[in-house]
Amino acid sequence: MTRTAVIVAWEKFTDIDVYLAWDLLNRIRLRDKEWKVKIVGTEPIHSSLFGINQQMHGNIDECKYADVVLFTSGQTTRRLIKDKAYLDRFQLNPDKQIIASMCSGALLLAALGLLDGLTATTYPTAVKDLQAFGIEVEEKPLVTHGNIATAAGCLAAIDLVGWIAGKTHGTELMEEVVASVQPVGKGLACIY
Amino acid sequence: MTRTAVIVAWEKFTDIDVYLAWDLLNRIRLRDKEWKVKIVGTEPIHSSLFGINQQMHGNIDECKYADVVLFTSGQTTRRLIKDKAYLDRFQLNPDKQIIASMCSGALLLAALGLLDGLTATTYPTAVKDLQAFGIEVEEKPLVTHGNIATAAGCLAAIDLVGWIAGKTHGTELMEEVVASVQPVGKGLACIY
Repeated sequence: MTRTAVIVAWEKFTDIDVYLAWDLLNRIRLRDKEWKVKIVGTEPIHSSLFGINQQMHGNIDECKYADVVLFTSGQTTRRLIKDKAYLDRFQLNPDKQIIASMCSGALLLAALGLLDGLTATTYPTAVKDLQAFGIEVEEKPLVTHGNIATAAGCLAAIDLVGWIAGKTHGTELMEEVVASVQPVGKGLACIY
Repeated sequence: MTRTAVIVAWEKFTDIDVYLAWDLLNRIRLRDKEWKVKIVGTEPIHSSLFGINQQMHGNIDECKYADVVLFTSGQTTRRLIKDKAYLDRFQLNPDKQIIASMCSGALLLAALGLLDGLTATTYPTAVKDLQAFGIEVEEKPLVTHGNIATAAGCLAAIDLVGWIAGKTHGTELMEEVVASVQPVGKGLACIY
């Protein structure tokens, strides 16, 4: 069964939040060849904060069909949460999809109404903007409610992708993915 | 004073090892506008293990002029250590340059003779190949000797770039870079 995880990027995306998720989500493919990972945006190419010109693998209209949708981060999120035409393209369903965010990506989950009545975490510089949606912000690396997760602080991507892998493939693969990126002498176990 | 750190990539480079170093080394730029980071290879574009087509910012002949040279990782290292024409292009000087590796990149340091008489760390699957150069392998995230460092296990990139930042810019910036990527509630301190 083909399943797809999409990483949502935009102009001036935070490099580490896109590429850490990209690598970690692709590690699931080492155990499940029908697992696909794509980086999607609104343009053929988006440039990162630090200047990587990243070709998109598709556009955000695909998010509604994806099994996992992960919003990344960057200052641009502050503009996108006010862009109704942009937000209208997602049409996400948290009953059927796993929906997650890194750092300020939580603002997009909030703008899409996905955090109504829930708590969440976000990057410190985005806390006030998230609270402005009426969301209670928790000072934690990872906050999950059902199929929705918010993570914050770049390395919390490990916890977040671990949680995603656990939801899609079970505890064993979750542990394998997390162990595969640990430092030597601190829990590293090779996955390839 | 302009200083340059180059990240050496190749065909089928390990995504996380290039991009984690890329993001972390660029964080130094947030405090030092004359600090430059480049990804270099032998072709205009190299594709990662998981399929990112990464445009190179220069080629490996620039390494001899760089202040910091960081070799990344991937299966391709096993072929490159036998490629004399490739190795001859580096002409590195550990008295004047900081020279480092992630994971199997240590094999290239060994092939260049830079680890002679030193200990080093590498990814578990590369330990035997590194020992074949007569190098004593330590099971540690980071091993440093003067201007030379080897790190292994993807997340050891944090320790490695912290060490580089300490060498080039001092302890305060080292701590800032490392703190800037920690999870929320686990030591995160914003750098921007």
